[in-house]
Amino acid sequence: MNKMQNDMKLFTLNSNRGLAEEIASDLGMEIGASSITRFSDGEVQIVIDETVRGYDTYLIQSTSEPGNEYLMELLIMIDALKRASARSINIVIPYYGYARQDRKARSREPITAKLIANLLEAAGATRILTVDLHAAQVQGFFNIPVDELRANSLLADYFKAKNLEDIVVIAPENAGTSRARRLADMLDAPIAFIDKQRKNDPGSVQGINIIGDIKGKSAIIIDDMIDTARTVTSGCMALKEFGANEVYACSTHGVLSEPAVSRIRESELKEVVITNSVYLPAQKRDERITVLSIGSLLAEGIRRVQNNESVSTLF
Amino acid sequence: MNKMQNDMKLFTLNSNRGLAEEIASDLGMEIGASSITRFSDGEVQIVIDETVRGYDTYLIQSTSEPGNEYLMELLIMIDALKRASARSINIVIPYYGYARQDRKARSREPITAKLIANLLEAAGATRILTVDLHAAQVQGFFNIPVDELRANSLLADYFKAKNLEDIVVIAPENAGTSRARRLADMLDAPIAFIDKQRKNDPGSVQGINIIGDIKGKSAIIIDDMIDTARTVTSGCMALKEFGANEVYACSTHGVLSEPAVSRIRESELKEVVITNSVYLPAQKRDERITVLSIGSLLAEGIRRVQNNESVSTLF
Amino acid sequence: MNKMQNDMKLFTLNSNRGLAEEIASDLGMEIGASSITRFSDGEVQIVIDETVRGYDTYLIQSTSEPGNEYLMELLIMIDALKRASARSINIVIPYYGYARQDRKARSREPITAKLIANLLEAAGATRILTVDLHAAQVQGFFNIPVDELRANSLLADYFKAKNLEDIVVIAPENAGTSRARRLADMLDAPIAFIDKQRKNDPGSVQGINIIGDIKGKSAIIIDDMIDTARTVTSGCMALKEFGANEVYACSTHGVLSEPAVSRIRESELKEVVITNSVYLPAQKRDERITVLSIGSLLAEGIRRVQNNESVSTLF
Amino acid sequence: MNKMQNDMKLFTLNSNRGLAEEIASDLGMEIGASSITRFSDGEVQIVIDETVRGYDTYLIQSTSEPGNEYLMELLIMIDALKRASARSINIVIPYYGYARQDRKARSREPITAKLIANLLEAAGATRILTVDLHAAQVQGFFNIPVDELRANSLLADYFKAKNLEDIVVIAPENAGTSRARRLADMLDAPIAFIDKQRKNDPGSVQGINIIGDIKGKSAIIIDDMIDTARTVTSGCMALKEFGANEVYACSTHGVLSEPAVSRIRESELKEVVITNSVYLPAQKRDERITVLSIGSLLAEGIRRVQNNESVSTLF
Amino acid sequence: MNKMQNDMKLFTLNSNRGLAEEIASDLGMEIGASSITRFSDGEVQIVIDETVRGYDTYLIQSTSEPGNEYLMELLIMIDALKRASARSINIVIPYYGYARQDRKARSREPITAKLIANLLEAAGATRILTVDLHAAQVQGFFNIPVDELRANSLLADYFKAKNLEDIVVIAPENAGTSRARRLADMLDAPIAFIDKQRKNDPGSVQGINIIGDIKGKSAIIIDDMIDTARTVTSGCMALKEFGANEVYACSTHGVLSEPAVSRIRESELKEVVITNSVYLPAQKRDERITVLSIGSLLAEGIRRVQNNESVSTLF
Amino acid sequence: MNKMQNDMKLFTLNSNRGLAEEIASDLGMEIGASSITRFSDGEVQIVIDETVRGYDTYLIQSTSEPGNEYLMELLIMIDALKRASARSINIVIPYYGYARQDRKARSREPITAKLIANLLEAAGATRILTVDLHAAQVQGFFNIPVDELRANSLLADYFKAKNLEDIVVIAPENAGTSRARRLADMLDAPIAFIDKQRKNDPGSVQGINIIGDIKGKSAIIIDDMIDTARTVTSGCMALKEFGANEVYACSTHGVLSEPAVSRIRESELKEVVITNSVYLPAQKRDERITVLSIGSLLAEGIRRVQNNESVSTLF
Repeated sequence: MNKMQNDMKLFTLNSNRGLAEEIASDLGMEIGASSITRFSDGEVQIVIDETVRGYDTYLIQSTSEPGNEYLMELLIMIDALKRASARSINIVIPYYGYARQDRKARSREPITAKLIANLLEAAGATRILTVDLHAAQVQGFFNIPVDELRANSLLADYFKAKNLEDIVVIAPENAGTSRARRLADMLDAPIAFIDKQRKNDPGSVQGINIIGDIKGKSAIIIDDMIDTARTVTSGCMALKEFGANEVYACSTHGVLSEPAVSRIRESELKEVVITNSVYLPAQKRDERITVLSIGSLLAEGIRRVQNNESVSTLF
Repeated sequence: MNKMQNDMKLFTLNSNRGLAEEIASDLGMEIGASSITRFSDGEVQIVIDETVRGYDTYLIQSTSEPGNEYLMELLIMIDALKRASARSINIVIPYYGYARQDRKARSREPITAKLIANLLEAAGATRILTVDLHAAQVQGFFNIPVDELRANSLLADYFKAKNLEDIVVIAPENAGTSRARRLADMLDAPIAFIDKQRKNDPGSVQGINIIGDIKGKSAIIIDDMIDTARTVTSGCMALKEFGANEVYACSTHGVLSEPAVSRIRESELKEVVITNSVYLPAQKRDERITVLSIGSLLAEGIRRVQNNESVSTLF
Repeated sequence: MNKMQNDMKLFTLNSNRGLAEEIASDLGMEIGASSITRFSDGEVQIVIDETVRGYDTYLIQSTSEPGNEYLMELLIMIDALKRASARSINIVIPYYGYARQDRKARSREPITAKLIANLLEAAGATRILTVDLHAAQVQGFFNIPVDELRANSLLADYFKAKNLEDIVVIAPENAGTSRARRLADMLDAPIAFIDKQRKNDPGSVQGINIIGDIKGKSAIIIDDMIDTARTVTSGCMALKEFGANEVYACSTHGVLSEPAVSRIRESELKEVVITNSVYLPAQKRDERITVLSIGSLLAEGIRRVQNNESVSTLF
Repeated sequence: MNKMQNDMKLFTLNSNRGLAEEIASDLGMEIGASSITRFSDGEVQIVIDETVRGYDTYLIQSTSEPGNEYLMELLIMIDALKRASARSINIVIPYYGYARQDRKARSREPITAKLIANLLEAAGATRILTVDLHAAQVQGFFNIPVDELRANSLLADYFKAKNLEDIVVIAPENAGTSRARRLADMLDAPIAFIDKQRKNDPGSVQGINIIGDIKGKSAIIIDDMIDTARTVTSGCMALKEFGANEVYACSTHGVLSEPAVSRIRESELKEVVITNSVYLPAQKRDERITVLSIGSLLAEGIRRVQNNESVSTLF
Repeated sequence: MNKMQNDMKLFTLNSNRGLAEEIASDLGMEIGASSITRFSDGEVQIVIDETVRGYDTYLIQSTSEPGNEYLMELLIMIDALKRASARSINIVIPYYGYARQDRKARSREPITAKLIANLLEAAGATRILTVDLHAAQVQGFFNIPVDELRANSLLADYFKAKNLEDIVVIAPENAGTSRARRLADMLDAPIAFIDKQRKNDPGSVQGINIIGDIKGKSAIIIDDMIDTARTVTSGCMALKEFGANEVYACSTHGVLSEPAVSRIRESELKEVVITNSVYLPAQKRDERITVLSIGSLLAEGIRRVQNNESVSTLF
Repeated sequence: MNKMQNDMKLFTLNSNRGLAEEIASDLGMEIGASSITRFSDGEVQIVIDETVRGYDTYLIQSTSEPGNEYLMELLIMIDALKRASARSINIVIPYYGYARQDRKARSREPITAKLIANLLEAAGATRILTVDLHAAQVQGFFNIPVDELRANSLLADYFKAKNLEDIVVIAPENAGTSRARRLADMLDAPIAFIDKQRKNDPGSVQGINIIGDIKGKSAIIIDDMIDTARTVTSGCMALKEFGANEVYACSTHGVLSEPAVSRIRESELKEVVITNSVYLPAQKRDERITVLSIGSLLAEGIRRVQNNESVSTLF
């Protein structure tokens, strides 16, 4: 441990200081001194207040809302670290924003997730450590090494501890069946999925159909992120209508944009389980929203990267 | 048309000369003269036999089996075109091999689909025109423009013309539900999927379960490629066992590696519908295997690229 | 003109639509159709609604406040244009934000103006057309061509038309003497400058000294940008105290961050002359703030770039 | 030695496992665990089975026949090592295939040897260690360091030990006189060369002439590689006709493509001396073909690279 | 110190061997062995005569006159170090030539200072250590870290030791007021500047005016470099005419091109203070020209870079 | 022709203005206006005096002695053309200096010919047009297209017109036999070569031997360049001693560094035939030195590049 502490420095920016402190504490380190201020016209100004020359640096920042601001903080800090002669610049990005724009769905769309990868490399990042990408293919947007941690087992362990009976894992809206299958394998449960057609079907709730057997069961919807919560709350409604006993939702990334929280409050969802990859401000907290911490997972990831141990055995 | 023919030249390599000739004929052009020979030790030797200086060149090659050979032909030809001062080098790659290795599924795996993208760019390609990528995210592996054509509607039109009754579209093995949903929308049909667990489930055929209602229906399995045909033939078996009336399989890319054809012949699959993105040699042909041509689709794609028209309205 | 209109398309983003429309109208063109929306979590979503394949595209955007948002819009739109096969992507950036962070003033600072240049090139920009950079050296941060227009003569012409008597041009706070000298040459006037020391000097107003003869004269302070207006208002106070008859301030870029406008209102500045390189919202307008338009200047710059004429004779 | 073994890992691919094991044994190391398999359609699949994070890795592979297959194995393994965070990726490539295509001999030819260099760098190689390139200029195709070892003295020592009398070293077909001169200097012998004209000359054997005095001598033809053996066998015939006493051939690289071995068997060549830079399969072995091992040479090269010692004093 | 000496090697080229030896001596090291010769046609030939494999190398060279020769020596040596596998290549460039061409002053000019930066990076430099750039923005021309040392305090200390009375620091010709202000702050003095107009003004000496109070004072002109000495000698003449008591000039970089020395000798300048960033040959020495050494400053800079200490606290 | 003249501009620098004017006159064009001056400290200053925006530009410069000066002129002009928005920057480099340093002959040598290629690409060159490279492999040092013209047939035609009897073509000093063979084929002649050993041989002139039959013949030594003329004059002496009737030397590139001309004058060489790829100043002219012009060859090369015709049929 001593050697590790001598060779590395940990920094954070503004997106999720609580998580960064948790990681630092787990590693037995201090967060490096840096100041991030704003000029009067809103331009980000960063100064690193201690030497990083020759150090392996780890920089923790999610590009959650406001994503453009946090991304620019990240890029500017990378530039500062590079020019200050850091030995390596390891970006710890618990939530990788813009990840949904990972292909041209229509003509003349950008592939913003790839753009972000290019920007991070152009700024000078030398490694990415992230958690549960929207699509694993985003790893390939980078030429630098990407270590993708999985928070699946955190979610699985949480549900196992609840001892629910007769579980069925639900893949939402024509996608994510393999993610659902992985969780189902951990919980020894069957899966089903929510099918959303364009044209209305008589037997469906607003074009939504449930494919698979859910009657009387505890349904757990798993998605890679919960943004406006439309998918999980409308899914919950359909599941209930088709006979589910109770409905949970879970996801690594709790983006919870407006009006996610009010939707959840008004829904029949029994519990929504997320992690702290995205910071959840006080006004968004709710007794039905459970936040698991990925602090230890990330700390262990950093420790292994720095000690040149395999990260893969982590998940 | 005249201007287009004056500005562009079309070349092909060895993977799929029939398709290249179909495209050339549709465009009213000749395929450019080039010779691809082998040195005695197997090294590829390419000479382009007419000037390409200042021309927009289009080079047709699938990286189907033997993929490494066809890929090297492609890279060497790109280098030759670059050094011969072609104005642009547009790669028409109906089947993009290695596309399945698009992420690190396990630790210390390569991301070969990204490597291929890097190699094509390093050699000098300036644009990619391809059909139905394994994952649309592969577009983002490139920094050059990628136009991805979709052969969906070809498949849909073919099945529409058959006037099958009571269709259900099947997504294979915990993935591809959105691809299935798209075809289902075109055929105005419901979907179901094949769930494959790791642990055996009493009610399943060797751990395979059908989620959704398929009893008495005409089931059409759609996958992005049919390689060894294990997925579609074991899916067919399960579908039959669970009561499907008849089972079809379709896919853009008919890779049909050993023992695909014998598996299909021994299965209860009524018909397997693929396209000629991969060349199907005589010994692999079978009356139950229908090959649709994507020649016109690619020719139209090339025409629009060359005439600076939108490719998106094509699909 | 017809040929030009056939080959090029003009686009704008959100920072300064009024200026973009002025430019379009001057060029006799329409602004291209594109939609810039936000996902619920604030991520920028851009779709270009008409083909740009093979076109020379010009994209107008200042990275004024909120700079990070406008910069991300710009980068994402460049990516979209690149992937949509635009022939060239010309960035018209009337006000280049972050330009003041153009060197490491202290250790471990970023050089953000260079970072922005790298990001624009990484995204795919092929040319920059801008106005009065904070330091001309920023041109050299790019490897792509940069055309820097000068709005000096606009300011000079405006003051000439006022027929002020006994003018002296003032360089603010130990910098910008060559900029002041250029304006002074156009107005046939002497220059003076404001010297700000760290240690107090008995004869000065809060450490501020006027070097040069300004007694009884009409003083025109010229700076490259007016941000919080502290410099020009405290300069005005000192100039008055040292005997100036009346004090004007002028600058190409009127950033006018809080509390610029109230400072100007409370000052003895007779008039502040800026251009519309940065959009001035209604609540910041004031009868003492004059906004000159650089629309024609930029339109003429674009016209010459597109027609392959020299831009240098413009200024 | 201990430190070296702690910091580095040695891997091999399929081209020449015997040589790799020889090198490993000389270094007192094990070859790292990795699996190279094929998908059913022939695509290469590589998984590295032990951590390489932070290690200096050395990867042994000749791109001998089948060259495209072995090259792709190499590129894919480099990508895997890069993404697995190896500290450096040192390519040990005893025989560099495609080396003869090192310039445009005719119009519109590729420069494949340069393409291969670009591909290796694009994949992520950080250093090349190779033996006797076809042209030393190929070093300059790389931007990364290239250490080129020479196997000359191995060949010279072998012939010295034979105590041949009245040696003359022969340069084949209008090239390679400086290579012949180097060997001649080591053997203290004169040189001669084989001149091949386009037009027939009365005094020549099929347009082949011997320039220099060879009568009654032991002639040793040296070439950089022996591929189909046409050059050395027809050279042998001419040398005999012009009066040579006996004829040997030697070369670092014994490519020996069809019909090299039968040509050698049918020729009057007394002995053909090559090294194991290219693997010689059992069916190509012959009592007249002597294979010297470059295992120790390569092991020593690797040892010096890893210990930061000069490689140049090796040859 | 021992560890440092074990890990690094110091090299010099021809521009300033005296300074290099001073640095080496201060570091307690020897200068590494290398030979720089010329072919008969003037081409530079460099061979490094000791191993650099794995070492951090520091290469000392100013690109002073003859700048193109010294720059090519530098680029060729960087290439040699790169190909010889140096671990890092740190360029110590006390005087960065071509620095004045740092922007397009007129149309169709190069930005040579940026070109030089690109060439140094293309050759393989990994860090720049330099002194007092013409414009600090040149730092941003690089993507590699730049440490810019300041020789200001050397100059200030020298003048403090002289105990001059009634000092005024002079900024020359409409530029450099902030540099003058910094020196003035160190000397606790006021500033003034020399204003040069295009049109003649009755009260001026050949269009030159002094702005600020200099009567009876000891004036110290500070410029970033003294090239032909026209600026400082004509400034001196004007200052005398306007009543200065005595006039000094100082600058970090004493380029002193023809006819600088004769101009200085013929002027009323009392003393010209420069540093040895540029080598001053014997024939240019003069009793009125004082040369301060920056050897210790650079040695300390190198020591801190190598020991991963902060360089910023140096100035 | 008209279209060509409208689209392209021709520029030259200082190395060989006579040749540039010859080329311009052959093309019926004017050389573009640009000024190349020197600052007092020798720094090169270039301004292009007419617009190049959107033009294909051709820049003629040999990097002959003083090579570093001419190379820097070339790089700076390329930067100026790039920043002035030239459409393409085609470098016409009749003599490519530093070409002999094309590999690491000894350890820790640079590969300067590759460095030059990297510098030209880094500056912004988009194509190279050159004549008879020292090694054809240098083509592969570039990633941009290289067109290499051959001046062989010029030399062959000149000797054919002389109607010499009993010609033998001589390859100098253990290299260049294939170049000699090519010329011999054109002259329908045999070849021989000069063998230079390290150890003295009793029958040789200072270790020099002639291999092949030259008695009573007209010997023509061909080398790729004649630098100090040591090789050709000592070759001549040996050829005479071994019985040659008369000795000629020829080469595309007449570098003729000191003391080439006096060596030639003192030798028994009957005639030395070179081209004007390198400018021959008056004091180096001699009645025995014949200079052929490559002006038409280069003009035709430029014409074909600009008109998108094949350059290969030129030689």
